[in-house]
Amino acid sequence: MVGKSQIKLIKSLQLKKNRNLHQLFVVEGLKTIQELLKSSFEVYSVFSTDDHFVEENSAFSALISSVDLKKMSSLNTPNGYLGVFKMSQKKAIHDNAWVVAVDTIQDPGNLGTIIRLCDWFGIKDLVCSSDTVDCYNPKVIQATMGSITRVNVTYLNLIDFLEETGLPIYGAFMDGETVYTSQMPVKGILVMGNEANGVSAEVEKLVQKRIAIPQFGAQTAESLNVATATAILLNEIRRG
Amino acid sequence: MVGKSQIKLIKSLQLKKNRNLHQLFVVEGLKTIQELLKSSFEVYSVFSTDDHFVEENSAFSALISSVDLKKMSSLNTPNGYLGVFKMSQKKAIHDNAWVVAVDTIQDPGNLGTIIRLCDWFGIKDLVCSSDTVDCYNPKVIQATMGSITRVNVTYLNLIDFLEETGLPIYGAFMDGETVYTSQMPVKGILVMGNEANGVSAEVEKLVQKRIAIPQFGAQTAESLNVATATAILLNEIRRG
Repeated sequence: MVGKSQIKLIKSLQLKKNRNLHQLFVVEGLKTIQELLKSSFEVYSVFSTDDHFVEENSAFSALISSVDLKKMSSLNTPNGYLGVFKMSQKKAIHDNAWVVAVDTIQDPGNLGTIIRLCDWFGIKDLVCSSDTVDCYNPKVIQATMGSITRVNVTYLNLIDFLEETGLPIYGAFMDGETVYTSQMPVKGILVMGNEANGVSAEVEKLVQKRIAIPQFGAQTAESLNVATATAILLNEIRRG
Repeated sequence: MVGKSQIKLIKSLQLKKNRNLHQLFVVEGLKTIQELLKSSFEVYSVFSTDDHFVEENSAFSALISSVDLKKMSSLNTPNGYLGVFKMSQKKAIHDNAWVVAVDTIQDPGNLGTIIRLCDWFGIKDLVCSSDTVDCYNPKVIQATMGSITRVNVTYLNLIDFLEETGLPIYGAFMDGETVYTSQMPVKGILVMGNEANGVSAEVEKLVQKRIAIPQFGAQTAESLNVATATAILLNEIRRG
């Protein structure tokens, strides 16, 4: 039996300010919930319409009616499983490897895809400017396909971080040196900019090496989407 | 003055069957409309709340009230410009270059991003299995960022196409040969599969060369998103 106040609490977690207040976030879908249960994230509760699942996971799960699930879900068509997890504690950023830094990424799908890419390419740390979309946004979590459990995402003042780091700072710019011939070091920071405006002027000043992905064909395409550009650059960093 | 029947027609174009019936599709946003006006797509009409724009483009545009624009728009917050264009005629597929083929892509954002990638990497032809999401879907058009005007998208029976082509057929598979050491020819077909299920069994049988993007780190990430995988593979094909 799920009470009204609990439904209200969980529904409220759709907003960032409430997630921060309660230090909780919501994950929908069996597969991603299972990834989180295997991870270092601490479970708060899982609500499900699947009595078999609830029986097998009785320590932390509760049976819920479809009607109540719909009340707490952010999906038009809830899929039967809604997990609530505790946000992770801040962890130190590794300073002896490649780090990805994003400046004001707005689209949840893009941030989620970048987290998934970091996981694939063995990047342990993603740092985000404080105005980047929240990584606990349900759409971000969904797009990470479980990778949120393996990448350390830190929100910070990006200018301060870049001013203080000892790592070489790389940034993607249309007028940069082609990444095909750039010698990429074994560690560094790769800065990726906002979807519409790219890297902000203050961050751009701190970039030490401007790199570019060559364009082919009629040279008419305006730019690449930030997630696909990140994919190509991480692949270039790793292929050596 | 925009009549009720016109609003009804344009609203109806949100559905694929109506787009096909009328051979018309909708584009929202000044920037993408301008790209289409410069392209070989023929304009049917542009509706705008911007009287300056309408005056300068009086041959094909009409002033519209915010209230009427909201009635025909697929956006929650219409942005002031809604263009209606005629679908392009079928064009022949080039058989002397690289072609990208997609098998049952469902997500409009993924298809739009792949079209944008084709444009960047000078791929003239994208072929889509007939059950792939419609390229005239407003969300696809939006994600192409104008690239829809420069890439020839053809829907067809993918099995028949692959059986009849003389081009070598490459496909992305987790167990393929690493793309870093694969010798990529100057022309071929790159087949990319569905978001959840990958390439279908029938298509897989026709793939002659299985390639893979190496994974780094803890080998725990399940897979790459299809658009980011396409980005990396097209970059590998072009970098040589």
